[in-house]
Amino acid sequence: MSHFPTPAAFRTALAALPVADATARAAAQRRQDQLTKPAGSLGRLEAIAVFIAGWQGRERPRIERARAAIFAGNHGFTVHGVSAFPASVTAQMVANFEAGGAAINALSGAAGMELSVTAIDLDTPTADFTTGPAMSEAECLAALEAGAAAVTPDLDLIAVGEMGIGNSTAAAALCARSFGGAVADWVGPGTGVDAEGIGRKVAVIERALALHGDAADDPFETLRRLGGREIAAIAGAVVRARQLGVPVVLDGFISCAALAPLAEAAPGITAHCIAGHCSTEPGHRRLLDHLGLEPLLSLGMRLGECSGAAVAVGVIRSALAAHDRMATFDEAAVSGAL
Amino acid sequence: MSHFPTPAAFRTALAALPVADATARAAAQRRQDQLTKPAGSLGRLEAIAVFIAGWQGRERPRIERARAAIFAGNHGFTVHGVSAFPASVTAQMVANFEAGGAAINALSGAAGMELSVTAIDLDTPTADFTTGPAMSEAECLAALEAGAAAVTPDLDLIAVGEMGIGNSTAAAALCARSFGGAVADWVGPGTGVDAEGIGRKVAVIERALALHGDAADDPFETLRRLGGREIAAIAGAVVRARQLGVPVVLDGFISCAALAPLAEAAPGITAHCIAGHCSTEPGHRRLLDHLGLEPLLSLGMRLGECSGAAVAVGVIRSALAAHDRMATFDEAAVSGAL
Repeated sequence: MSHFPTPAAFRTALAALPVADATARAAAQRRQDQLTKPAGSLGRLEAIAVFIAGWQGRERPRIERARAAIFAGNHGFTVHGVSAFPASVTAQMVANFEAGGAAINALSGAAGMELSVTAIDLDTPTADFTTGPAMSEAECLAALEAGAAAVTPDLDLIAVGEMGIGNSTAAAALCARSFGGAVADWVGPGTGVDAEGIGRKVAVIERALALHGDAADDPFETLRRLGGREIAAIAGAVVRARQLGVPVVLDGFISCAALAPLAEAAPGITAHCIAGHCSTEPGHRRLLDHLGLEPLLSLGMRLGECSGAAVAVGVIRSALAAHDRMATFDEAAVSGAL
Repeated sequence: MSHFPTPAAFRTALAALPVADATARAAAQRRQDQLTKPAGSLGRLEAIAVFIAGWQGRERPRIERARAAIFAGNHGFTVHGVSAFPASVTAQMVANFEAGGAAINALSGAAGMELSVTAIDLDTPTADFTTGPAMSEAECLAALEAGAAAVTPDLDLIAVGEMGIGNSTAAAALCARSFGGAVADWVGPGTGVDAEGIGRKVAVIERALALHGDAADDPFETLRRLGGREIAAIAGAVVRARQLGVPVVLDGFISCAALAPLAEAAPGITAHCIAGHCSTEPGHRRLLDHLGLEPLLSLGMRLGECSGAAVAVGVIRSALAAHDRMATFDEAAVSGAL
């Protein structure tokens, strides 16, 4: 059974996003206020514990089963020379994920997460979005579904990331289309192109935006025309996680850009999401601001493949450990503030 | 055998700080450049791996044994009403550490660290530094030694933190004396005093600085006059760790302030240190700048007791996991940049 069998079903899902459990949130906040520390002194760790409590629906949230989900896809516009790496690297890196040799293998392991890798039709890149929509409706629905399928109800948390040579160009196109502003404001070096490469990215995106300028202002349609399979999969995973009450940790610029086309129709789309980090890709900070997200980490990372989100999961585990294991002022017989 | 039997011995140690192993650093950097990612794309994680490699003296550093070391002391100037909590809370929190109910118990556990708690003469607060030196020479030497004793050669890493009601006032005094600037620039709410309490802190520090203004400009003498037992212990631990080649993770404003009096005599004192985080105590960012440290995390924490440093250790573990476990381009048959 498909979760999003039609574009209309996806729109319906966006219009009916569940909200957090206010009772569990309130109970978690009361607990935080009784723990042996000055109120608020654990800062973001306290907010994280209350946030996860709300989405898991329990006063003391836990992470027993967490997944790092990577989605991979290839892009037709890479023929225009927008990446420092050849498109063949997408498949090579997927093989590296499967062999256990990539950063995310080490980082998900260190964070106690299982890793799922969903490569979507790597042998069939999306169509070149400067000459037509990147995907047909059926292709985009299949990608959304691939994302939804990676989210299972037994998860306490999911982190989402991507691999797709060239996809910072698709991400920038989605941001420019969704939030406006100069295309150049959304474009950066990605995996490491030079100024000339950045110029090519801007030109490619401007052609694509012009071509699709008359398309309907609709989340599905924007994803389909300007996104990519791995990007649509992330959108599908994030929406499905919301339906299942599974909190999400977003990775970098591209993962977050998957939500850009959804944000106008569903402004609360990121309410169950933590931005794992802020990458060095210059558009990421701007995008996080548009999505109303404050990144947990800022470590100068720019790898993608869920790497920043996986590091953030370690911090989230710390937050939950403090929330769960600390004594209250009463239990420890410690005096409160004067 | 005491590591710092005399003030002169402490000065000698500061003048003879070992440096990192350049060969191990270079080997670690070469390895980073061969791993399956765009060069530099793991940002701070790469720098951490190379940093720890240099101090551990091995291309592939590891953290098998790590310790969170908390030092506790009481302060005579607390009679002037500079804290939101009564001085008795220092001992209560030490009991909480020992019973396992504090934030650091949960956070050190989550970071896979053992915890050591060194309470130094809690029943004998330091003397009120507005009327005389906080410590005698013997008391300050004993505190340095208590710090040194918490560092053992079998450690792969140590994080240092503190507990001592009122000690953000001592920390601010040390910073103002060591780095100058307006006293108010170094003073903040600590565990949560209001504007009136901050005014009392400023006044107390200004009196202390005036009283000790003619003292010798010497690391030991400044620690002794304006510091506290837990603060001197941190200074002793950091110097001893340097002698043993054990990298240090610093916690918040007070832990970092322990190095303020050392920095003029030994500008490289923080070369083996990572600033675990930047707290919300307003002087911390300024202090980190003076110490030449860029904090790893910025999570709005302000608890002390090694809590921020312990969260940072999780990130450091992630950095080492990526460094150690990732495949090289050759091993994974992945194409490098075009």
